[in-house]
Amino acid sequence: MVNRALTHCQLVPGIAPTMQAALDEWTTVEPKLAERAAALELSTAHSDVMPFDAGQCAAPLPRSYHWVDGSAYVNHVELVRKARGADMPATFWTDPLVYQGGSDDLLGARDDAPFGDTAWGIDLEAEVAVITDDVPMATTPEAAASHIKLVTLVNDWSLRALIPGELAKGFGFYQSKPATAFSPVAVTPDELGDAWRDSKVHLPLISRINGKDFGRPDAGVDMTFSFAQLIAHVTKTRKLGAGAIVGSGTVSNYDRSRGSSCLAEKRTLEQMESGSPRTPFLQFGDRVSIEMLDAGGNSIFGALDNRVVKAGS
Amino acid sequence: MVNRALTHCQLVPGIAPTMQAALDEWTTVEPKLAERAAALELSTAHSDVMPFDAGQCAAPLPRSYHWVDGSAYVNHVELVRKARGADMPATFWTDPLVYQGGSDDLLGARDDAPFGDTAWGIDLEAEVAVITDDVPMATTPEAAASHIKLVTLVNDWSLRALIPGELAKGFGFYQSKPATAFSPVAVTPDELGDAWRDSKVHLPLISRINGKDFGRPDAGVDMTFSFAQLIAHVTKTRKLGAGAIVGSGTVSNYDRSRGSSCLAEKRTLEQMESGSPRTPFLQFGDRVSIEMLDAGGNSIFGALDNRVVKAGS
Repeated sequence: MVNRALTHCQLVPGIAPTMQAALDEWTTVEPKLAERAAALELSTAHSDVMPFDAGQCAAPLPRSYHWVDGSAYVNHVELVRKARGADMPATFWTDPLVYQGGSDDLLGARDDAPFGDTAWGIDLEAEVAVITDDVPMATTPEAAASHIKLVTLVNDWSLRALIPGELAKGFGFYQSKPATAFSPVAVTPDELGDAWRDSKVHLPLISRINGKDFGRPDAGVDMTFSFAQLIAHVTKTRKLGAGAIVGSGTVSNYDRSRGSSCLAEKRTLEQMESGSPRTPFLQFGDRVSIEMLDAGGNSIFGALDNRVVKAGS
Repeated sequence: MVNRALTHCQLVPGIAPTMQAALDEWTTVEPKLAERAAALELSTAHSDVMPFDAGQCAAPLPRSYHWVDGSAYVNHVELVRKARGADMPATFWTDPLVYQGGSDDLLGARDDAPFGDTAWGIDLEAEVAVITDDVPMATTPEAAASHIKLVTLVNDWSLRALIPGELAKGFGFYQSKPATAFSPVAVTPDELGDAWRDSKVHLPLISRINGKDFGRPDAGVDMTFSFAQLIAHVTKTRKLGAGAIVGSGTVSNYDRSRGSSCLAEKRTLEQMESGSPRTPFLQFGDRVSIEMLDAGGNSIFGALDNRVVKAGS
């Protein structure tokens, strides 16, 4: 349990020993968490309240039973396909594209992100994600909205050089999607106030590489499929278990002055402009920071700030 | 903890409260489980020993943090592609094909398997799977073998009519792969005796539809990639967490007299023989049973016996 200012925190073993346990029993646990959170806002002067250190945080769910990522910013998909001369089927505007990611190893916000080889084309993907309770099979978008219990930020690292060969095999991503990183904190949607509308987060998502601004597209603008629509899509043939994480895909705006949320998009734009990409993929030692600020300029989820490192080093 | 004859069982909360907890601490837990198992073989006359009822079993892991399924029987892939006039790239013999399945909702051996519509083309896929402990990134096939802690059977239901459209989108399976079912029991590899060699199970895998024999291909013959090789493949760019389930893919033999492990293969053979498939996909009310017997004719894992039902009924 972390206070709104992200300065203090408190263990709540009497309410729920883990985030998964809280989500498993959310209906009974949530009022108790809300009560404790309100008390923490009023005063941090309790013996069990500690200073909050994002550097000590595992991911909100260090392992999850389900991590499915959408491609909800269809303008991004259209752009990348156009760059390689491939038309995008019109159904991509109405039928969400999702892939399932590894969920047994989710990185904390300050963990080193290990990769075997920079020749794999290491890229960030800055995203928003939601965490659900149990969602029945065949849930409608209308009903899906109420199953969104938490919102968090994601760096869905991609290995761009491994993707073409893997997708050509026909079964989607696997090796090309290594362990995903999460923001220090997940928040309930009501914490977002007016910025949470239509199951979308209407705020800029800020990415920085080595401290330098890389992009701040708005996560609400150009999101073709809301989180509720993504949940409806993924429950067509199966239910979701509590603690399922549903991602937005790389946040992207038609307004290119907002920058990008992944190097692949930036490189595509460079290629279309000048015939070849100029910006390299990530190197060992590079740092990727991702954050979202509220209207008052305060960090909502805390910042991801992961260093790209050589695996095993 | 179930005895070898599958007649009696015992809760072991003092050793591990759940299968996941056992796998999380396997090195310390396994000797205690082995000792208790040996005692159970000697005598079932303890107050906490109960009759074993496979009908009461959830999946060995009712939810898992990772479920990745291979296509290790490449002859099957070759056959299905040949039937639709598509060549198979030669690399399929050396580079495993895997997909990640939903792991937050795994069906027990006697649970009803719910589907929305028989028009989705409901098919069984009888498979063998292994369950691992923590496996580091970049594990070699040689090192991978020792991370295999349990072996189990799987029905990896597929929705054949949804697959072509979904794969055409380029990101692999999602809606076309509903909740997977598991055998009542998972066993340690040593329980398989000589049948466990080279990280493969050298025994026939028996499938029945509505009580009628459907196939009994040998799971060791024609398995192009061993479980150790599959684990090496999936850890190229990431580690696996304890409790990861790695599947073989549909078991298939070149010797077609052994029958098939999925209707898609049988229908492909019918089409090649007579120009069109004769065997329909599964209907509501159909039962699919999957089992493996040891050399003495005893069931090793207990039988899956799931009924295909209309979702929500």
